[in-house]
Amino acid sequence: MGKISYVNGRYLNHRDATVHIEDRGYQFSDGVYEVIAFYNRRLLDEDLHLQRLTRSLAALHIISPVHENSLRFVMRELIARNNRVDGTLYMQITRGVAKRDHPFPHATEASLVMAVTGPKMPKAKEITEGVGVITEPDLRWARRDIKSISLLPNILAKQKASLAGAREAWLVDEAGMISEGAVSNNAIINAKNELITHAADEHILGGITRDVVLNIARKSGIKVIERSFSLKEAKTAREAFLTSTTSNVLPVTRIDGVAVGNGKPGPVTLKLLSLYHEHIYAQTGKQWN
Amino acid sequence: MGKISYVNGRYLNHRDATVHIEDRGYQFSDGVYEVIAFYNRRLLDEDLHLQRLTRSLAALHIISPVHENSLRFVMRELIARNNRVDGTLYMQITRGVAKRDHPFPHATEASLVMAVTGPKMPKAKEITEGVGVITEPDLRWARRDIKSISLLPNILAKQKASLAGAREAWLVDEAGMISEGAVSNNAIINAKNELITHAADEHILGGITRDVVLNIARKSGIKVIERSFSLKEAKTAREAFLTSTTSNVLPVTRIDGVAVGNGKPGPVTLKLLSLYHEHIYAQTGKQWN
Repeated sequence: MGKISYVNGRYLNHRDATVHIEDRGYQFSDGVYEVIAFYNRRLLDEDLHLQRLTRSLAALHIISPVHENSLRFVMRELIARNNRVDGTLYMQITRGVAKRDHPFPHATEASLVMAVTGPKMPKAKEITEGVGVITEPDLRWARRDIKSISLLPNILAKQKASLAGAREAWLVDEAGMISEGAVSNNAIINAKNELITHAADEHILGGITRDVVLNIARKSGIKVIERSFSLKEAKTAREAFLTSTTSNVLPVTRIDGVAVGNGKPGPVTLKLLSLYHEHIYAQTGKQWN
Repeated sequence: MGKISYVNGRYLNHRDATVHIEDRGYQFSDGVYEVIAFYNRRLLDEDLHLQRLTRSLAALHIISPVHENSLRFVMRELIARNNRVDGTLYMQITRGVAKRDHPFPHATEASLVMAVTGPKMPKAKEITEGVGVITEPDLRWARRDIKSISLLPNILAKQKASLAGAREAWLVDEAGMISEGAVSNNAIINAKNELITHAADEHILGGITRDVVLNIARKSGIKVIERSFSLKEAKTAREAFLTSTTSNVLPVTRIDGVAVGNGKPGPVTLKLLSLYHEHIYAQTGKQWN
């Protein structure tokens, strides 16, 4: 059976999954998205993702074309039709198809597209050795808290990381402060074993994995400080890590080629990863080795 | 005959003009575009638009899927197939279709899409009375010189203008300096009858109409000063106007409800509009009343 994707009410062979050239997502990046992991066909932190989707839609004044229950149904149906046990669900809602004009169209129904892919787990070596990141100027717009498809600066930064053989690009503002990664949030552990991460304001995209990991950290007695940190602070931190739906908790052991701490994944990071794996297990029954 | 659009080598009924949901234009706003006016089936300033397209593509490391001669052929063919005499040609090139992943895909051919619409001339009243603009914070990313489809901040600002009954939103930075409009460039005329407009650097999208009008101004003896100007300076200017492919030269007579100069289109602006009309006539034979 081939891959099946969902487009505006229809389950289609993936190769036939198309949208109109005047879909405002294509002409204006006028839309939002979510990426949700699933294990044993169970969506991880589904409610949190849908809450964020609702916030993103509201920020752009886009009305979802379907009610939340229908959305949940389609997500499950698409996973079932693709016969996937573990994987990632991608969902995109745009303002819909209208004759090209910048202001919002009237009486246009939003577009809803979904696709599933196989799981994108970090490699074992990325966990045991940690990953390297580079730093890049943060060129993005001012409303990074909206999970929009306006991702051009993000892909350009990620491409630079890719060319440099790094896992991710950390984005640095003109004052030398790090906001987050191009496609992930990040945090450092200081000499007091405190976790420092940028507050979830308009400067970053507040990740679901970030929120879950911060809650886990607090529950396990780690002090969490939500403030921005400088590149200099990161390079001299005891530990560093990044979080995202597809990366989970990933130790960062090199920043611009400089070793973080002793250059190996740190105990706080590995503890948080272990607790995050327990979080996944509790919701989906997925076991990690 | 219905509307015909072009998608990756095929001329299609407009309603059938679709792209794949994994076109990177749809998922990442990973693409660029041009809007070119044509009159009497002749494209206005075609070379300048294609030069800018080439610059935008190079900035994003996208390789055009067709050679320039083919591009020029398709543009003419599409105008002919739509049986349009005057109108606007929209062209979009994205990095193409690839399994969703942020770094650039390998061996993926870029997508090319074109559509034509009828002319979008300013209304007579907009020229005789001028238009009003509002001001909005400039929330855009740092590379506004690339004519990318990452236009979410632009449409949000234009929507606010639309709700306010204004023609355009002028974008103001934190220091109170105006960069340009959401979908147009702008300029003011000071008490010495000098034309002041933001330099064509990374902070603005250097419009083709802007370039042509500045050349026209210089040739007619108007001193052109390329520097940013403040909102305060704009509100106390003698004249103000905006330029774009679909607006030509449009007098701006109200900024945030405050009259510019005597509140009527000024002589320098109207002279530039008249000379711009002559520019159009010289290239296309289009006559203006």
